[in-house]
Amino acid sequence: MPKVAVIMGSKNDYEVVKPACDVLRKFGADVTVRVISAHRTPREVADFAENAAGNGYEVIIAAAGKAAHLAGVVASLTPLPVVGIPVKSSTLDGLDSLLSTVQMPSGVPVACVAVNGAENAGLLAAQILSLKYPKFLDAVSDYKRSLAEKIRADDAKLQEEIGS
Amino acid sequence: MPKVAVIMGSKNDYEVVKPACDVLRKFGADVTVRVISAHRTPREVADFAENAAGNGYEVIIAAAGKAAHLAGVVASLTPLPVVGIPVKSSTLDGLDSLLSTVQMPSGVPVACVAVNGAENAGLLAAQILSLKYPKFLDAVSDYKRSLAEKIRADDAKLQEEIGS
Amino acid sequence: MPKVAVIMGSKNDYEVVKPACDVLRKFGADVTVRVISAHRTPREVADFAENAAGNGYEVIIAAAGKAAHLAGVVASLTPLPVVGIPVKSSTLDGLDSLLSTVQMPSGVPVACVAVNGAENAGLLAAQILSLKYPKFLDAVSDYKRSLAEKIRADDAKLQEEIGS
Amino acid sequence: MPKVAVIMGSKNDYEVVKPACDVLRKFGADVTVRVISAHRTPREVADFAENAAGNGYEVIIAAAGKAAHLAGVVASLTPLPVVGIPVKSSTLDGLDSLLSTVQMPSGVPVACVAVNGAENAGLLAAQILSLKYPKFLDAVSDYKRSLAEKIRADDAKLQEEIGS
Amino acid sequence: MPKVAVIMGSKNDYEVVKPACDVLRKFGADVTVRVISAHRTPREVADFAENAAGNGYEVIIAAAGKAAHLAGVVASLTPLPVVGIPVKSSTLDGLDSLLSTVQMPSGVPVACVAVNGAENAGLLAAQILSLKYPKFLDAVSDYKRSLAEKIRADDAKLQEEIGS
Amino acid sequence: MPKVAVIMGSKNDYEVVKPACDVLRKFGADVTVRVISAHRTPREVADFAENAAGNGYEVIIAAAGKAAHLAGVVASLTPLPVVGIPVKSSTLDGLDSLLSTVQMPSGVPVACVAVNGAENAGLLAAQILSLKYPKFLDAVSDYKRSLAEKIRADDAKLQEEIGS
Amino acid sequence: MPKVAVIMGSKNDYEVVKPACDVLRKFGADVTVRVISAHRTPREVADFAENAAGNGYEVIIAAAGKAAHLAGVVASLTPLPVVGIPVKSSTLDGLDSLLSTVQMPSGVPVACVAVNGAENAGLLAAQILSLKYPKFLDAVSDYKRSLAEKIRADDAKLQEEIGS
Amino acid sequence: MPKVAVIMGSKNDYEVVKPACDVLRKFGADVTVRVISAHRTPREVADFAENAAGNGYEVIIAAAGKAAHLAGVVASLTPLPVVGIPVKSSTLDGLDSLLSTVQMPSGVPVACVAVNGAENAGLLAAQILSLKYPKFLDAVSDYKRSLAEKIRADDAKLQEEIGS
Repeated sequence: MPKVAVIMGSKNDYEVVKPACDVLRKFGADVTVRVISAHRTPREVADFAENAAGNGYEVIIAAAGKAAHLAGVVASLTPLPVVGIPVKSSTLDGLDSLLSTVQMPSGVPVACVAVNGAENAGLLAAQILSLKYPKFLDAVSDYKRSLAEKIRADDAKLQEEIGS
Repeated sequence: MPKVAVIMGSKNDYEVVKPACDVLRKFGADVTVRVISAHRTPREVADFAENAAGNGYEVIIAAAGKAAHLAGVVASLTPLPVVGIPVKSSTLDGLDSLLSTVQMPSGVPVACVAVNGAENAGLLAAQILSLKYPKFLDAVSDYKRSLAEKIRADDAKLQEEIGS
Repeated sequence: MPKVAVIMGSKNDYEVVKPACDVLRKFGADVTVRVISAHRTPREVADFAENAAGNGYEVIIAAAGKAAHLAGVVASLTPLPVVGIPVKSSTLDGLDSLLSTVQMPSGVPVACVAVNGAENAGLLAAQILSLKYPKFLDAVSDYKRSLAEKIRADDAKLQEEIGS
Repeated sequence: MPKVAVIMGSKNDYEVVKPACDVLRKFGADVTVRVISAHRTPREVADFAENAAGNGYEVIIAAAGKAAHLAGVVASLTPLPVVGIPVKSSTLDGLDSLLSTVQMPSGVPVACVAVNGAENAGLLAAQILSLKYPKFLDAVSDYKRSLAEKIRADDAKLQEEIGS
Repeated sequence: MPKVAVIMGSKNDYEVVKPACDVLRKFGADVTVRVISAHRTPREVADFAENAAGNGYEVIIAAAGKAAHLAGVVASLTPLPVVGIPVKSSTLDGLDSLLSTVQMPSGVPVACVAVNGAENAGLLAAQILSLKYPKFLDAVSDYKRSLAEKIRADDAKLQEEIGS
Repeated sequence: MPKVAVIMGSKNDYEVVKPACDVLRKFGADVTVRVISAHRTPREVADFAENAAGNGYEVIIAAAGKAAHLAGVVASLTPLPVVGIPVKSSTLDGLDSLLSTVQMPSGVPVACVAVNGAENAGLLAAQILSLKYPKFLDAVSDYKRSLAEKIRADDAKLQEEIGS
Repeated sequence: MPKVAVIMGSKNDYEVVKPACDVLRKFGADVTVRVISAHRTPREVADFAENAAGNGYEVIIAAAGKAAHLAGVVASLTPLPVVGIPVKSSTLDGLDSLLSTVQMPSGVPVACVAVNGAENAGLLAAQILSLKYPKFLDAVSDYKRSLAEKIRADDAKLQEEIGS
Repeated sequence: MPKVAVIMGSKNDYEVVKPACDVLRKFGADVTVRVISAHRTPREVADFAENAAGNGYEVIIAAAGKAAHLAGVVASLTPLPVVGIPVKSSTLDGLDSLLSTVQMPSGVPVACVAVNGAENAGLLAAQILSLKYPKFLDAVSDYKRSLAEKIRADDAKLQEEIGS
């Protein structure tokens, strides 16, 4: 059972982050959730990141808002792939979080998803895990199929509703 | 030798994209470079994406500018992880490419890097490959070490130059 | 009775899209409404787009949000004129949808209207149809006249209300 | 031979606008080019727009920069379809032109293309004409095929150049 | 009694525009309020603008949202000073209205105030009128004094409330 | 001969500002040009602004870049109409200057023109002066006519050049 | 007991500003709160700023929204360090306030914090005071420790809640 | 002689950062310049920041571009005041650097100056030092006076040049 860490800068972000955990658990990952802040508990973040590979994590998902440094700081301290979720805060509509997460300088990539895009962060982590754990590839394929089914059902339902 | 595809919407983008190829080849990946356009050769893109897993690719890097749909279209047709490089075009300073690449709807993630961030796209692909090919983890670690060395050397050089 | 297809990436977008259908039906077009997603049901989208001209559609209206690829993907697979409606999503106030829809690369135009501008998408489709079906030109002219009447009535009503 | 008018707010914009004229002439349209300004020669614009349908024009392309009102003003005075080209000016990177062209209020659509997207404006006009003049549909299809050929040739050339 | 026209593109904008009327009436101007739309009743707008000077208006205030062309269109048809109020609409937070109003090309100025800045539009009109009607200079000075008084009173009140 | 003051925060801005002076002098205004900085010589700015009306100025034009406070600071200290020119600086493409100039709070209007829009600032000042000095209304009308002539000449020239 | 002035352009801003006062008082500063407006009571602002050092203030915090000039105007009139808080207003989501506060020209710095970032303004003032008053360094360190404790407690609580 | 550290994420940033060093040295500070990167040498950054106070630094200036985390990371590890300089990079015109630097979450302030605003960063550091070292207050006052003199000289020179 592959280990994924989902970390966030504030407990308030958990509601935004939850879909990443849900999809990964559903797919059979062992998900650890942590509240650690690049700015308020920087040493915990460093400890976590430096030991993440040693502790058996294979992918890290990091969510933060505003001047969102968490994903980048973790990425600077681990060779593991890091997925970043920019969290929309109360001002600037998430543009600050997005640019702070995605515009990483050369040498330290973060795999950025959409603002508040936690479900995609979970799916992306699953796709990454699938290189080593083929069942995750199946899970992703199944998931996409179920999304397609839902769209097809919605299509049929809309036809009915509007009688077109 | 793991296979990575690096695709772009226009041959002009190759200069931007090249660092991704370079870093992956240096690390020992088998890199295929393709010019295929979501808008101009959509069927080639579909063929490529639908067969990518079957053809042995393990990660796909897609670069495009303006209303940059290439990464998203490919991601919709393969369960493989897709890394997106937003390419800066002549107007709007890359903001259009960035938002078109990163703001993917739930269910179809793209791992977006910075505008013109090809080197990071290559490194991110290497990190993803490292789950299955441990030598890529070493390569990434070495790479990060060499970046750190360069910063340290720059630091020393600057001290000398300004005599501080 | 000319055939127009109005497609959207998510059933939730129907409320936004409805005014396009209403105006076209009022003008006498045969409107087909579909939920098909560039990202979740890409093959349906390809099937739809490749067969749209053959199936008798003359104009296509496509609505999508965030990294809004639907209009562009359809435009890449049909020679028919495609009208794009950027749908405002919960972050970035529709700027992502707008840029993803309007900034199409050379060779594959999308006729983009305002964010959530479904009524105008319907009118634009009617103007396009009017080249072949002159009664649509009359319908557009009548519609514009009725808008002008409404403005004139509003003007009169405001004079009354404020007694100016 | 269908008549298209390509109008612009300033003679300086002709270099940007030319690809629209070129593609339409190549496809066999009769293209009239005019410099008329919504702000500097408003009466000429009104005369032009009010008489455009009567004078046999079937589509109008309007290009302007900054607070780009030309397309919208013309659209308010004619039932014909109006394609708008936002022209990048020396400040704000074309965002002002784009928003001034695309964000039209309900009732008066403009079919907006990308900033400086004149080639697409020409193609879109051709697609609109194709409803009445089927040879334009063929021309658009041929054009798209030639673009696809170019991409395929570029793909082959790149393979050669980089020996991948 | 100097005549000022306050025009708006939609009756819905009246709530936003009202403070401009209020301040001008309080200062002794004869304010005419009109709903006329650059896009829906362009001929009324042209009639209004071309005859505004002849009808005795001395300043015009024009409010509009989205691709806000009203102020610019009026300014193109009258030598009178035109004050533009960008009205915030439901998307893009007023940025579209602002850029469409303020970024006028050389030769046709609009005196733009803040998004939804109707009170300032009224004051600016009063300042313009004050060149000919000195009592408006006094009214503006008094108004500024009363604002200063209010700030001073607020300052005192806050001291009390927080006991600092 | 009416007196207008054209002030700027830095001597470097003079090239941007010059068209405002040129048009006003051509129309017969007495133009005083001053380099005074809201941030570097605040007391001179206060002296200037508080005495501007007493010294016979009737309109003030203020140009500044970045966090452009000059127009607002002057407007806070004089009842005269103040025209603001946002000057494009080396970063953020003038958006900072524009927002700092146009988004004035209620009570203290600035008549903002486009980024680097000095010619329009001069014309707007002339329109304001025209309330008291009717010859300025004629000058503005003549100017607009000459602009219209230029557009008409450009239109004719373009027809010739492209033989359309 | 070191003296800090917290000034704001409008009494309505007090709710936003309060956390700056709270943290400074808790740390043992003597906080004066004032409502003075760069635009409405410019002379009070000048008096305040010119006398601030003489009156014993050691740091000034200034909060304002929209075209937020207060911090810059004060900074131009005092050699004391000035901390600026951009206050989010009803349009443009605080971007106007931010750029008007942070983009100060060379020679007149403002220490800008995040939009509505009053708590940080208070902490920054405390850090500045700590150069002279070492107990503020301890207070800041304690504060950071308590934040870290809170994050650690939140981390523990989240583990419990989700049973991970 | 007070100690200030000026750190930057890349040696290339030195040209941008130099004015901060120059002004501080001119005022009599002992300036240490370091190239240390939050992303490439995170442990050096942590070492530096954790020991900065112990090593006698009293203010830290940190400059970085893109997803600019350096100032924030240092601020999270030291109670000293940290001044952040957002460095303009090749895309997005510095907006990414600015938002990543200024939008810090509560508890960890960074004193942000303008994009590329190194001179102001130096002056702000001097203002902070002035609390403990009164001669820096004099230096800042002198500096401001010399800026004012330059503006006055420029004003005089411009009068001469244009003969106004």
